[in-house]
Amino acid sequence: MEFSSKLLEEAVNEMSQLPGIGRRTALRLVLHLLKQPESQTVALSKALLDFKTDVKFCKNCHNISDTDLCEICANKSRQSEVVCVVEDIRDVMAIENTSQYRGLYHVLGGKINPMEGVGPSQLNIKSLIEKVKLGKIEEIIFALSSTLEGDTTNFYIYKQLEGLEVKTSTIARGIAVGDELEYADEVTLGRSITNRIPFEKSLKSQ
Amino acid sequence: MEFSSKLLEEAVNEMSQLPGIGRRTALRLVLHLLKQPESQTVALSKALLDFKTDVKFCKNCHNISDTDLCEICANKSRQSEVVCVVEDIRDVMAIENTSQYRGLYHVLGGKINPMEGVGPSQLNIKSLIEKVKLGKIEEIIFALSSTLEGDTTNFYIYKQLEGLEVKTSTIARGIAVGDELEYADEVTLGRSITNRIPFEKSLKSQ
Repeated sequence: MEFSSKLLEEAVNEMSQLPGIGRRTALRLVLHLLKQPESQTVALSKALLDFKTDVKFCKNCHNISDTDLCEICANKSRQSEVVCVVEDIRDVMAIENTSQYRGLYHVLGGKINPMEGVGPSQLNIKSLIEKVKLGKIEEIIFALSSTLEGDTTNFYIYKQLEGLEVKTSTIARGIAVGDELEYADEVTLGRSITNRIPFEKSLKSQ
Repeated sequence: MEFSSKLLEEAVNEMSQLPGIGRRTALRLVLHLLKQPESQTVALSKALLDFKTDVKFCKNCHNISDTDLCEICANKSRQSEVVCVVEDIRDVMAIENTSQYRGLYHVLGGKINPMEGVGPSQLNIKSLIEKVKLGKIEEIIFALSSTLEGDTTNFYIYKQLEGLEVKTSTIARGIAVGDELEYADEVTLGRSITNRIPFEKSLKSQ
């Protein structure tokens, strides 16, 4: 792509640094901003900069938060003895949307991924172990995605917890509610049979 | 979507104003920036702002340009008596990429679209007619997309040119080079038969 303007080229270059945004899409987005009032571009630039420079993290669970302690951790009515380990804020939002969970979270900020140079020390793992050592946590729920990296991270944390008095569990994998068995992948279907639950229990969770 | 941070929410809100970017994608992009060095967010914000505030347009063809006269208009070796009418800079870039065109362009900045409140006065049509009136243009090539809006705009300009001595043409519509006839839509195939060209001519353009 050859541009007739350095300013345009620069804007497209920066925009196409974002994941999933190719150069054509970047050009379309930049030309869209050109047609809109200047206030929109100013607001976008300011919001991104403000977020990046002023973002804070909850000192307890490491979730993104505008206050020292996030709303969930500060909520006295939640069960502080149950902690759900997740990768990032999107997982917190997804679980909160279910309204089925009353415990707290611990946001790792990623998964162990040697290929991308992410080791345990880059993640918020140490602070999780410290919290457990204080003895006030009864259960750790692993809710990382079931990929090689997710499983590795789960196992690493599990090993670190050895000798500490805490229950560990992992979220159930199985056929999605409403899904047809025939379209499920074998691994998921296999797991959902191995980890079957008593029928009476399934009635309760409806 | 409920956010644990106003700063995050604001960034996602602004990002999702862009066309084709939903709130989930916006969140993914903003969280990506959070993981990158601050310099990337600074560069992105600055590039967008600089482009929006300092953008200039060629005073002859209205294309985006950092100089008063764009590189194409300033190029003495191009045929200034042939002018190709296009919607925006993307069309200029697409035609330039073919290396088949040696004339100049005239960028309208849009198409007549009453539904979206775009009338002829919002487009760079008047300056095109003025240019033709100076008598130095021999041919106008219409290269707008063949939609209702494109056809309306072509026809409007065509009417404005009545009585002026200038040849008008429109780019050929037909089956794409390498495409199978059976997969072409009927309108395109019909046009490519109606507007067939002498075989000898097709040899020359290969």
